[in-house]
Amino acid sequence: MTTTARSTATPATGAVITDVVTHDIRFPTSRELDGSDAMNPDPDYSAAYLVLRTDAGDGIEGHGFTFTIGRGNDVQVAAIDALKPHLLGRSVDELAADPGTLGRALTGDSQLRWLGPEKGVMHMAIGAVVNAAWDLAAKRAGLPLWKFLADAEPEWLVEQVDFRYIADALTPAEALELLRAGRVGAAGREAVLRERGYPGYTTSPGWLGYSDEKLTRLARQAVADGFTQIKLKVGADLADDVRRMRAARAAVGPDIRIAIDANQRWNVGEAIEWTRALAAFDPYWIEEPTSPDDILGHATVRAAVGPDIKVATGEHVQNRIVFKQLLQAGAVDVVQIDAARVGGVSENLAILLLAAKFGVPVCPHAGGVGLCELVQHLSMFDFVALSGTTEDRVIEYVDHLHDHFETPVVMRDGHYTAPTAPGFSATMHPGSIAEYRYPDGRFWTADRARGAADIPEEAVV
Amino acid sequence: MTTTARSTATPATGAVITDVVTHDIRFPTSRELDGSDAMNPDPDYSAAYLVLRTDAGDGIEGHGFTFTIGRGNDVQVAAIDALKPHLLGRSVDELAADPGTLGRALTGDSQLRWLGPEKGVMHMAIGAVVNAAWDLAAKRAGLPLWKFLADAEPEWLVEQVDFRYIADALTPAEALELLRAGRVGAAGREAVLRERGYPGYTTSPGWLGYSDEKLTRLARQAVADGFTQIKLKVGADLADDVRRMRAARAAVGPDIRIAIDANQRWNVGEAIEWTRALAAFDPYWIEEPTSPDDILGHATVRAAVGPDIKVATGEHVQNRIVFKQLLQAGAVDVVQIDAARVGGVSENLAILLLAAKFGVPVCPHAGGVGLCELVQHLSMFDFVALSGTTEDRVIEYVDHLHDHFETPVVMRDGHYTAPTAPGFSATMHPGSIAEYRYPDGRFWTADRARGAADIPEEAVV
Repeated sequence: MTTTARSTATPATGAVITDVVTHDIRFPTSRELDGSDAMNPDPDYSAAYLVLRTDAGDGIEGHGFTFTIGRGNDVQVAAIDALKPHLLGRSVDELAADPGTLGRALTGDSQLRWLGPEKGVMHMAIGAVVNAAWDLAAKRAGLPLWKFLADAEPEWLVEQVDFRYIADALTPAEALELLRAGRVGAAGREAVLRERGYPGYTTSPGWLGYSDEKLTRLARQAVADGFTQIKLKVGADLADDVRRMRAARAAVGPDIRIAIDANQRWNVGEAIEWTRALAAFDPYWIEEPTSPDDILGHATVRAAVGPDIKVATGEHVQNRIVFKQLLQAGAVDVVQIDAARVGGVSENLAILLLAAKFGVPVCPHAGGVGLCELVQHLSMFDFVALSGTTEDRVIEYVDHLHDHFETPVVMRDGHYTAPTAPGFSATMHPGSIAEYRYPDGRFWTADRARGAADIPEEAVV
Repeated sequence: MTTTARSTATPATGAVITDVVTHDIRFPTSRELDGSDAMNPDPDYSAAYLVLRTDAGDGIEGHGFTFTIGRGNDVQVAAIDALKPHLLGRSVDELAADPGTLGRALTGDSQLRWLGPEKGVMHMAIGAVVNAAWDLAAKRAGLPLWKFLADAEPEWLVEQVDFRYIADALTPAEALELLRAGRVGAAGREAVLRERGYPGYTTSPGWLGYSDEKLTRLARQAVADGFTQIKLKVGADLADDVRRMRAARAAVGPDIRIAIDANQRWNVGEAIEWTRALAAFDPYWIEEPTSPDDILGHATVRAAVGPDIKVATGEHVQNRIVFKQLLQAGAVDVVQIDAARVGGVSENLAILLLAAKFGVPVCPHAGGVGLCELVQHLSMFDFVALSGTTEDRVIEYVDHLHDHFETPVVMRDGHYTAPTAPGFSATMHPGSIAEYRYPDGRFWTADRARGAADIPEEAVV
């Protein structure tokens, strides 16, 4: 494969990856009701976190992570550890010049591939590692990732994408054409982005565990904060949902979009009935109405509830191949990429290109631990240098756990402010890692000393 | 949920699961070319193996495993270990009376679910555990699993199935009707099964690494052994495949079916072209022409190469939801269940029922480590008490590693002989475990002493 070396990369001739440090980091979020939904009643927001260290002597590391919700975070760390032989000794120059090659090497490991392929624990581990490589590359270039991508040559970006299994919907030549077209007017859009930021929407009012009073108060606050869209979790009890949706609509008025999110709670038939029962309150989209694996099911739901109510999914969609089919089948109105589930930036480039080809807006999933920090870069690149628009596009925003990151997202008037620090905004404070490492961090050690039950045992009875 | 207690279960009142022992077992099969195909050039056939122990005092254990091909088997073991809290202390009586409940508890763990849902490493771990529970249940009933299932009340079998996300294609009422219809004539079919066995086909001649001479010799041997179908691996080089396919057809004559298997090597367009290029040699089916995630892609391939050449897939299909869509979309002519990838016997019941509903034959994937031992039970149940036929149905057979099992498959005249030992035929010899445990078994310890490189390091450079 030919590579187009990026002239912006800091030289580090001869430097290699010398260490891959992994951490099992868990925050005890289940002790609040923040983050509760119909399928995830007690999440402990967690990160299987890794650091790529080098001998370049420049102090630059690559950081990446998989987001999980508690139990199994150790399995995710074990999966990242299983990838170490692919990383140790790799040339830093080559990695930074061509992160896509790493992604293909990891997904193509003929033995590890059996554990997916390209799905679940192993693929999420690959995503974390690939994201760390992109973080390293952008840091070495001295650019925030969105700008690193937006400045890259279209030919080079196409080389970073794995077209295997998607070439029937998007050829490399078509991708190149989209990226070339995306460069037209990019400078002007970059100026707009730096001035106004990228629009967000907030899920903060809508968690299932909140009282109607809290929902109403937080919904009004969201509007006051400049958001033009909020989201409510639904799917546990229809009467409750009708009441909550009525309260939310009353709180925000007719002009604010209210998305609803069932978190895969329903079968296809239930999804249609339940969504129709909430139609009177004008939901903007129904998110994850059923299994993320059910392409034909989403198409059926969309045919039944659209076009007034849009269908959205993606946070649990396993890879570009399923996104391809959701688009081919006309199953979704909104593509919800997640920065840390698929095979990292490289595969998300493929998904952004597919969405651009099909003309479907991308509204990323975020929240959790650090997902806002990561995914903002992908949407900002998409705006500046691919789709060229923010129309009907918003990034999810949840006000959780940002303080644990060195360069947390900055919201202003309902918009994500464009990051300026080099890299992918993935770096967690060392103090947060020391506090919340599981099971040996200070918080968990003290927690056991207080006699609280261990997470894995309290929750599975 | 109401449960219909099985009168055949041995009473063990008060007994519970006391231990879950796991083993990382790896066989050095990559040192031969057995098992090589276009995507898996150097598999080290492996098992992430578990034993459910109880305090019932009857010596009965439940055995189960996930099959992998080497690296990552440790990640798979870690995933099984993560399920232990769901198992320890569980009532043996309740587990044996209702294994489906365990499956739902495992797939429904709200935190672990994030790592799938129902796909990849975590779901394969669930499958191993659920299979161990079915093994325990069948052993306690004193019946081989196929007979345990075939004798079960239809109402009870329906209760073992999770209809979530498949109810739009198959309702519990429809499943009940299929199972009731399947009982008609079951005794006669059981007699036929015990007399003749269940037809198999063999992949032994067709591995990519074999010379044409070896292929020809093994293909003739397969016919002499009573097989009416063989399979060739294809997809690495078209000229080679044409030559090998010609040799195979010459060896077996026009009446033996020759299936071809691309192991996901192709994009959709390539799959169509390559398969057509081999059409002159009358391949019976093209297996895994592209990604197992690509439902619409398989439908496109089938529309292009069918009906003369059938389309088959399934060994890497992650769950019942994807099988459902393959059937809904008319994407496959042959459903290839795997005993150890989806959520165990319970989910395979769902898939067998879906295939029966759509009238599509099931021809299981097998080979690897112990997959023949397991999956024969599912096909035999299907013949005796569900689809009621073996027409166009064959179980894959590969002559690998059977001797490591206490009750290995017995082939006779190209047929799998019906197992008579209680359980799921999953129990590996303790001596084999002691020999091939990785990295501390006798073989691996001696291997390192001989100075051979460790598997994970030799293969990833």
